[in-house]
Amino acid sequence: MAAQGLPVFADIELAAKRIQGEAVLTPLLENVKLNALVSGRVFIKAECLQRTGSFKFRGAWNCISKLDPARNKGGVVAYSSGNHAQGVAAAAQLRGIPALIVMPEDTPEIKKANTKSYGAEVVTYDRATESREEIANSYVAKRGAVLVPPFEHADIIAGQGTSGLEIVAALQACGVVLDDMLVNCSGGGLTAGIALAFSERSSKTKVHPVEPEGFDDYARSLRSGVREKNPRSSGSICDALLTQQPGEMTFAMNKGRLAEGYVVSEAEVRRAMRFAFETLKLVVEPGGAVGLAAVLSGKAAAKGKNIGIILSGGNVDPELFADILAET
Amino acid sequence: MAAQGLPVFADIELAAKRIQGEAVLTPLLENVKLNALVSGRVFIKAECLQRTGSFKFRGAWNCISKLDPARNKGGVVAYSSGNHAQGVAAAAQLRGIPALIVMPEDTPEIKKANTKSYGAEVVTYDRATESREEIANSYVAKRGAVLVPPFEHADIIAGQGTSGLEIVAALQACGVVLDDMLVNCSGGGLTAGIALAFSERSSKTKVHPVEPEGFDDYARSLRSGVREKNPRSSGSICDALLTQQPGEMTFAMNKGRLAEGYVVSEAEVRRAMRFAFETLKLVVEPGGAVGLAAVLSGKAAAKGKNIGIILSGGNVDPELFADILAET
Repeated sequence: MAAQGLPVFADIELAAKRIQGEAVLTPLLENVKLNALVSGRVFIKAECLQRTGSFKFRGAWNCISKLDPARNKGGVVAYSSGNHAQGVAAAAQLRGIPALIVMPEDTPEIKKANTKSYGAEVVTYDRATESREEIANSYVAKRGAVLVPPFEHADIIAGQGTSGLEIVAALQACGVVLDDMLVNCSGGGLTAGIALAFSERSSKTKVHPVEPEGFDDYARSLRSGVREKNPRSSGSICDALLTQQPGEMTFAMNKGRLAEGYVVSEAEVRRAMRFAFETLKLVVEPGGAVGLAAVLSGKAAAKGKNIGIILSGGNVDPELFADILAET
Repeated sequence: MAAQGLPVFADIELAAKRIQGEAVLTPLLENVKLNALVSGRVFIKAECLQRTGSFKFRGAWNCISKLDPARNKGGVVAYSSGNHAQGVAAAAQLRGIPALIVMPEDTPEIKKANTKSYGAEVVTYDRATESREEIANSYVAKRGAVLVPPFEHADIIAGQGTSGLEIVAALQACGVVLDDMLVNCSGGGLTAGIALAFSERSSKTKVHPVEPEGFDDYARSLRSGVREKNPRSSGSICDALLTQQPGEMTFAMNKGRLAEGYVVSEAEVRRAMRFAFETLKLVVEPGGAVGLAAVLSGKAAAKGKNIGIILSGGNVDPELFADILAET
């Protein structure tokens, strides 16, 4: 299968073998209090416990582990709001090749610091006025590097899909079939990977994207059938979910597979992060909490159902986290 | 085996069957950054993800699930700094019997609120001037209730020991034998249970208690061979680890099984809690972080070793957590 083509289910199975021993097989948790609160069963894929603190390491390693260090001395280049940055930086370090990451200036400090901690070079840009693709491509040309896009790549999508494979395997072991699987959605790579995994292994489950208010391009695109754009490129607490529109590849994969999208408010996201702290004992970043927010807010009806959510990342600055804890 | 006698390994196996489906089989995690930092492999039993936010539900349910609601209308009484309180309250609620819990006035608010949320009646006392045992016993007499002690009970110790059984099982599945297992220690129930499990299933592993400064009664008792007392009964950030001296039963079990105790400072505990937030993405309370603190501080040497730690609880007030995040 060419890297330009759309991935198929077998690519996820291959990816699962590649990431084994390097990525964390994250737990699928259930919480009695959460279940009681929503009168259903909620299965929580804790990807905040993944290497680099988000699911992004899966796709990055699936892609970068294929590169030959001797033939790729120019290393890799990526653009990312922060979690893909860390995934790529860690994967490149593990593979022994250099990484340059183009990140927005306003990305959380913890994401910049972590990316550098994996030995990557970080270049920042202005989310509102500059094109991260252009900056990244100029470095690719200059260095003879390989571009590792955040979602428009078969290896990336297949890698993210391994989380879906793990969710289904864990549920099958206890005889549970999900009614709904909620996936935190930005460019749609994680969503496409999980929807592909479920289409093969749990086809009765409806897969829903979840987005923050103002950045509901996927929900709108699913309704209109074409890739809609968001009016803004910044201004949500969910820094990880600000992609301007669905990816071309991801939308081609997702449009026939996804059920309606859910959209949550900033207040609902903050409440979900507090709930994760108080009850789940997990550190979740804003973009990682939208699925939980959809369940807690009742926007995704859970009563009498089996619902899957993914806490997709936990890279949040301590200042913001403390601020959210201070609310009542 | 009488409840007054010391538990044996078979009691842990029975307890494991009893708690199945009610307690969470918590994950044993590994973190690449932590391993790199200490140049060893650290296996993290995340008991903060346990039902009620600490390991205490294991022992409470192992004990209380045996009670017949028809014959125990007086319910159960317990005294606890907060985590045993929640474990007993949740177990009693699940069993359908009333619970009265005697808690220190200065216990974290989240622990009082959670205990009440499981339907228990809470009575507070002054840690410095009153005897919680006396208060509890007066209610036991008045109500015809059953006392569920925090550690001096075979069912409690065997229940806590199930966490040790799970740790060894998870490690055996990946062919790892621990050199050292660090156990956060107060009265010694968790330590006794884990040391018993390891003595049977992983006898080459040294089991060490870990305590906060000023409350190192177990470390001193292991050195002197008799049960030493702490000079104070309050005044540590580790509210869960303030028992005045080793339990009689737990010390009888532990004195021949434990290796030297480690003692960590408040600053080391706070640093460990921040590390858990930033890197592990787990919410850990002060008393739950002493084992991690021992590893991060270098007091427990990890270089080239396989070390087990247990994050024994995550019930921490948001104000304190925010305060700890604000430090650099």
